[in-house]
Amino acid sequence: MHDPDSFLSAAADLLGERGLTRDPELMDAWLTDWRGRYRGKALALASPASTAQVAALVRLCAQHRVPIVPQGGNSGMSGGATPDDSGTALLLSLRRMDAIRAIERDAQQAVCEAGVVLQSLHEGAAAARMRFPLTLGGKGSATVGGLIATNAGGTQVLRHGTMRAQVLGLEAVLADGSVFDALTPLKKDNRGFDLKQLLIGSEGTLGIVTAATLRLLPETGGRAVLWAGLGSIADARRLLLHCEERAGGELEGFEVIPAHSLAAVLDHLPDARSPLAGEHAWHALIELVAAPGEAEGLAGLAESLLTAAFEAGLVEDATIAANEGQAEQFWLLRDSISPAERALGPAMQHDISVPVARMASFVEQAVPAVEGRFPGTRAVAFGHLGDGNVHFHVLAPPGTARGAWEDGEGKAISAFVHDLVTDWGGSISAEHGIGQMKRDELARLGDPVALAMMRSVKQALDPHGLLNPGKLVTLAPAAPSN
Amino acid sequence: MHDPDSFLSAAADLLGERGLTRDPELMDAWLTDWRGRYRGKALALASPASTAQVAALVRLCAQHRVPIVPQGGNSGMSGGATPDDSGTALLLSLRRMDAIRAIERDAQQAVCEAGVVLQSLHEGAAAARMRFPLTLGGKGSATVGGLIATNAGGTQVLRHGTMRAQVLGLEAVLADGSVFDALTPLKKDNRGFDLKQLLIGSEGTLGIVTAATLRLLPETGGRAVLWAGLGSIADARRLLLHCEERAGGELEGFEVIPAHSLAAVLDHLPDARSPLAGEHAWHALIELVAAPGEAEGLAGLAESLLTAAFEAGLVEDATIAANEGQAEQFWLLRDSISPAERALGPAMQHDISVPVARMASFVEQAVPAVEGRFPGTRAVAFGHLGDGNVHFHVLAPPGTARGAWEDGEGKAISAFVHDLVTDWGGSISAEHGIGQMKRDELARLGDPVALAMMRSVKQALDPHGLLNPGKLVTLAPAAPSN
Repeated sequence: MHDPDSFLSAAADLLGERGLTRDPELMDAWLTDWRGRYRGKALALASPASTAQVAALVRLCAQHRVPIVPQGGNSGMSGGATPDDSGTALLLSLRRMDAIRAIERDAQQAVCEAGVVLQSLHEGAAAARMRFPLTLGGKGSATVGGLIATNAGGTQVLRHGTMRAQVLGLEAVLADGSVFDALTPLKKDNRGFDLKQLLIGSEGTLGIVTAATLRLLPETGGRAVLWAGLGSIADARRLLLHCEERAGGELEGFEVIPAHSLAAVLDHLPDARSPLAGEHAWHALIELVAAPGEAEGLAGLAESLLTAAFEAGLVEDATIAANEGQAEQFWLLRDSISPAERALGPAMQHDISVPVARMASFVEQAVPAVEGRFPGTRAVAFGHLGDGNVHFHVLAPPGTARGAWEDGEGKAISAFVHDLVTDWGGSISAEHGIGQMKRDELARLGDPVALAMMRSVKQALDPHGLLNPGKLVTLAPAAPSN
Repeated sequence: MHDPDSFLSAAADLLGERGLTRDPELMDAWLTDWRGRYRGKALALASPASTAQVAALVRLCAQHRVPIVPQGGNSGMSGGATPDDSGTALLLSLRRMDAIRAIERDAQQAVCEAGVVLQSLHEGAAAARMRFPLTLGGKGSATVGGLIATNAGGTQVLRHGTMRAQVLGLEAVLADGSVFDALTPLKKDNRGFDLKQLLIGSEGTLGIVTAATLRLLPETGGRAVLWAGLGSIADARRLLLHCEERAGGELEGFEVIPAHSLAAVLDHLPDARSPLAGEHAWHALIELVAAPGEAEGLAGLAESLLTAAFEAGLVEDATIAANEGQAEQFWLLRDSISPAERALGPAMQHDISVPVARMASFVEQAVPAVEGRFPGTRAVAFGHLGDGNVHFHVLAPPGTARGAWEDGEGKAISAFVHDLVTDWGGSISAEHGIGQMKRDELARLGDPVALAMMRSVKQALDPHGLLNPGKLVTLAPAAPSN
């Protein structure tokens, strides 16, 4: 950057008083990721109020060669929205752009600005007797723009797909400040490369999402939530196939939980109890969702599903939530695994996927492999078996203090897990993205052909490397900045 | 190219006798598109037998700067697989790579080489009691590679999406001969840009698809095919919403046919008869498909759907195909519109889309606008109303000879239609792609920001412009070939 003062003065003129601050107190919360793993510095915090302001600001940044770190709810898992510590980057918050511009019932879609919080979208859709079929733990802070930039997942991907599948139209500001406007959804449009798809999941390195048209579904006709105790994760895989065959159209969630994780949750939540009386090596949490007006058949479907599963020897024990309150308790057990495991001490967390059909075998082999290689550790895998995606946590030996372990043995463990998952044809980032946390691991383990394509595309669309630098993929140091 | 002989000799060594020919008789059929609109020349016709051969061949082409025109079944609609008439390009047929490598029932997927013909994929899936949910008129020649390169559509997009939605994994050879291997499907994978999506629909200009993993569905539990006579296309839109609301999960096709097109088909097919006794301004062809084992409920659903539509005043008359034979007759009427219209004389055909909710209004306004501006012509719109995609044909005044009209008034008509659809926020290519036919219209009417992005990406991934040159998007003449 040639002259920060002239840039800041022009940016202040452009954005007005509410749109730009350098106040350390106002900036502080946004310079650390929510888990406190990454901390950075920024030249200023910009909060534009419109796409036109974002476009003008990015043009200004391009002129002054000011790097930009876009940020939504700051609830990402990979440090993708935290600037580096040089203090040269502008932190660009999309949170002020929080209007739901339209909810269109016939077209079953919502037009949202990037800063709309997921929870607000859920509420807006519900008010129109519709629903938005993606949810995740951070729904109270995660924004539409961030969800798109990271192609977020969650517990409904099994039936409805990731964020990519929800995006019907997109608007984004590119590195030179031009506005890519593909907000109007066309079901069929073959006018060349699908640039929208390129921007989804690019973590702010190719463009800044400013608005989107998202698909909505009719509100549901109710749900049935089942809990099953299983002898092995291989049985969980068989139970999943059983459910897909008999209730494929209603199956909205299929999560697996090992005994250790359930025990940790029951210790962690004083009022919680296990849904089943006995002990089981594995548990499955299954959600069936009825189409509107088809609620009455759902209980029967859930019953017959379980009866047949018992007969086939797939489950050791099982129960169906008697009411909505109990259904929420079942889900609370699942959603409390991460905090419960965290309370046990330091752990390395890995968000990994392998082909769905291989996940049970992967877990069966990876758990003893990790525990054997790193004595005293305990490996647990839980989560979205139906998506071939588990959160693979490796807990430090009991009594280990936080801090040094993560940077020492912890790093070796992560490299070991990533090597393993790569050998199995899987992904080192299933749903959390790369950000800064996994950038070097992606460079180490990613397909060199894909990495070269990514660098070429990044270089072509952001030749000066100003969009979220240091995240996802880096440009070669010697790359010409034409 | 520096030395064609040395290139051809090296290519012959690489591909063997079956893999390369310059015999004009063997090449002839592939140098013209199937509709006979475009004719080109080629240096030779290469027919590699494996991905490794494609990769080695493309490396050789890169060394010798030989342009490549990839070709599948040569059944495209936009001249995208026909070389120019310079004779400098290599025509690269993927047809020899026609193995279905695997059909995996549990994973519900098929792994196919690029040259697999769509009909063969349908048969292979059926043999495993599965189905591939995309079909179109050219299924006897269209190949998997071509379907992916053009993101093909068809009559099942309403429920199952375009080809993009069927591609779980992809393998492609890039401009430098490297192999992009993303064949193994992961339901969740957030390791950076989704390069697979960039290649799908890029018409061979960014890479050559060599294989794909495609999703399969369980075989259906039967279908119900309905034919309705309607007073207007606005009623067709209302009937579509009615069907989506009451049978959204079963609705697999919703096609509209104007009276003129039906009359043309009945004239064209001597044994055909109208499904309904009376005259109607518009007709709708509706297909409901039952999930496996749910056939018995389908007839009742179809009946109640029509009863309610009558009560709501949406249809003037309607009938349900009594058996499979009659269902096929209904579809034959729909599939015969193009040949029937062609028999009437010259016509300009436009494959256009607008947002689904606007299509009825668009047709209502565009038809008189075109006929008013070009007296004596007749405009007809038919096809995939549920996708916001109609084939908008403008027939020459009766008695017009073929040839001069298409290049004169015909061109003006197409420009007029394309202007109109662009004003309505639509696409000048809904499902047929750009190829060479619409390249200049895309350059004229496309969003300049999107066009600039496409040129940047093309330049980055194919810096020498060797992949399908002159198709879709051209590089700036002054672009440096670094």
